[in-house]
Amino acid sequence: MSLLVVGTVAFDAIETPFGKTDKIVGGAASYIALAASYYTKSINLVSVVGDDFPHEFMGVLRQHGVNLKGLQIKKGEKSFFWAGKYHNDLNTRDTLATELNVLATFDPIVPVEYKDCEFLMLGNLMPLVQQKVIAQLPKRPKLIVLDTMNFWMDTALEELTQTIAMVDVLTINDSEARQLSGEYSLVKAAQKILDMGPKVLIIKKGEHGALLFNKEEVFFAPALPLEEVYDPTGAGDSFAGGFIGYLAQTKDISFENMKRAIIYGSAMASFTVEKFGTEKLIGLTQEDIDKRLQEFIDLVQFDLSFV
Amino acid sequence: MSLLVVGTVAFDAIETPFGKTDKIVGGAASYIALAASYYTKSINLVSVVGDDFPHEFMGVLRQHGVNLKGLQIKKGEKSFFWAGKYHNDLNTRDTLATELNVLATFDPIVPVEYKDCEFLMLGNLMPLVQQKVIAQLPKRPKLIVLDTMNFWMDTALEELTQTIAMVDVLTINDSEARQLSGEYSLVKAAQKILDMGPKVLIIKKGEHGALLFNKEEVFFAPALPLEEVYDPTGAGDSFAGGFIGYLAQTKDISFENMKRAIIYGSAMASFTVEKFGTEKLIGLTQEDIDKRLQEFIDLVQFDLSFV
Repeated sequence: MSLLVVGTVAFDAIETPFGKTDKIVGGAASYIALAASYYTKSINLVSVVGDDFPHEFMGVLRQHGVNLKGLQIKKGEKSFFWAGKYHNDLNTRDTLATELNVLATFDPIVPVEYKDCEFLMLGNLMPLVQQKVIAQLPKRPKLIVLDTMNFWMDTALEELTQTIAMVDVLTINDSEARQLSGEYSLVKAAQKILDMGPKVLIIKKGEHGALLFNKEEVFFAPALPLEEVYDPTGAGDSFAGGFIGYLAQTKDISFENMKRAIIYGSAMASFTVEKFGTEKLIGLTQEDIDKRLQEFIDLVQFDLSFV
Repeated sequence: MSLLVVGTVAFDAIETPFGKTDKIVGGAASYIALAASYYTKSINLVSVVGDDFPHEFMGVLRQHGVNLKGLQIKKGEKSFFWAGKYHNDLNTRDTLATELNVLATFDPIVPVEYKDCEFLMLGNLMPLVQQKVIAQLPKRPKLIVLDTMNFWMDTALEELTQTIAMVDVLTINDSEARQLSGEYSLVKAAQKILDMGPKVLIIKKGEHGALLFNKEEVFFAPALPLEEVYDPTGAGDSFAGGFIGYLAQTKDISFENMKRAIIYGSAMASFTVEKFGTEKLIGLTQEDIDKRLQEFIDLVQFDLSFV
């Protein structure tokens, strides 16, 4: 009963209106695994780094219960690197550098002891690499969640569409949902995207929260209004990690339980953006998380008793 | 125990991606009064029109329980007229025409029988006109709600600041909150604006819902995800009308009750945007409203029972 996480483990250099980092540790799978680790302790990672990647951070992942058997370390090669600068609104950003390095030839290998996974989280990656992971599993997982982005819609739409048809839950942001469906209304966009295969669609709206759709229902999770958002990097990945971590822990993939799961995901994202990189996701306490969840309850709970 | 509504009663010509209208009936006070009429039946209007304004619409307002004694009809003059064109995202618009007409010399007169009002809704208008209404009331109302917009921040900031200091609740949109406070973070913006006088601030975020702040608490009301938004005109006014109408009906101005009131306001706004102008706000049934409120409950209700 384990969670398999596939995605990048990498370096980022980030500039926001609040500051600037040198190369720091990041990558979709790092955020996903750390966020999920607060809900489930059986996490297996498939990814790739160069031998420039810090052993300290691998230790952090291990301390969070993440099995690194599927993390390939390529001798003499360099880890994936992304540099970006966020605009004042923190909703838009410019990419300053993308160095694929080890990612250019990444061939994911799922170790034998990972193959009975029941929950599969495909972090943002080339759609064909995501498919290769699914193909290696002898039994289809109970739940496959896919995160992707507009870059693959622009450059690999056919492969992406194939991958989308293979999964249960797709998570994308609002502009990506509009791009993928050709519909401006998110309600219409959701119905078109659900016709492409997934049973459930999550549309992430950043500081405006997230929408959870299936064919019949819709649910909305707010984002917590924060005094300061230092760095949005990894917010979507942390959201996905909290979401699938909670589902893997509870083993309940009903729509009702997914409502809870996106609140847990939103809580993890709200932590991530309060510091640069993965810093805030390391060493949270149960008390921190419970307090944050209570803030979500207080934020939206109302009682229209006479309805 | 009545609600006094002050604001424009006017003509609009509206173009959206879904169609175009000739001159139709609009104005902040029209939307506010119609929306409020579903919650309270004691509504007094102060406004001004020219003799070009249709008597049919005055009949509609009367049928909704709105007292028009304070509606001045200026012989030989024309009603206020606004024409605008919404962009594809419906969140931004260009003003094509603004003809002040009767509004240029509007001197609001509060009829004697209105003067015991307990709830005062100041719809978007010149700040000095709003102040003149407050000045005519012998006893301060139990609650004064003020709606305003960026135009007055640009052109009459001093008078606007005075007016803001006189009210209990201010409603503005997110970009206006940022402009008024000079803060990008809405949490910080809210605290600065609450220091200007109001006890409560509502920040409207259009399709992204609304935030309710006092000095200690924050509450979030989502907007309903709609298949089609035909025309956003009047959404903010309908929101304000539902909000104050519910408060006037329940006579409870606690923060807890304001949470309910902004859900009621959001429900009224969700009706308004489904048709052009005031069309959808006329002739709603209790069943329509109850069904819509249930959709809001379903949209955000979750149960984290083990927290």
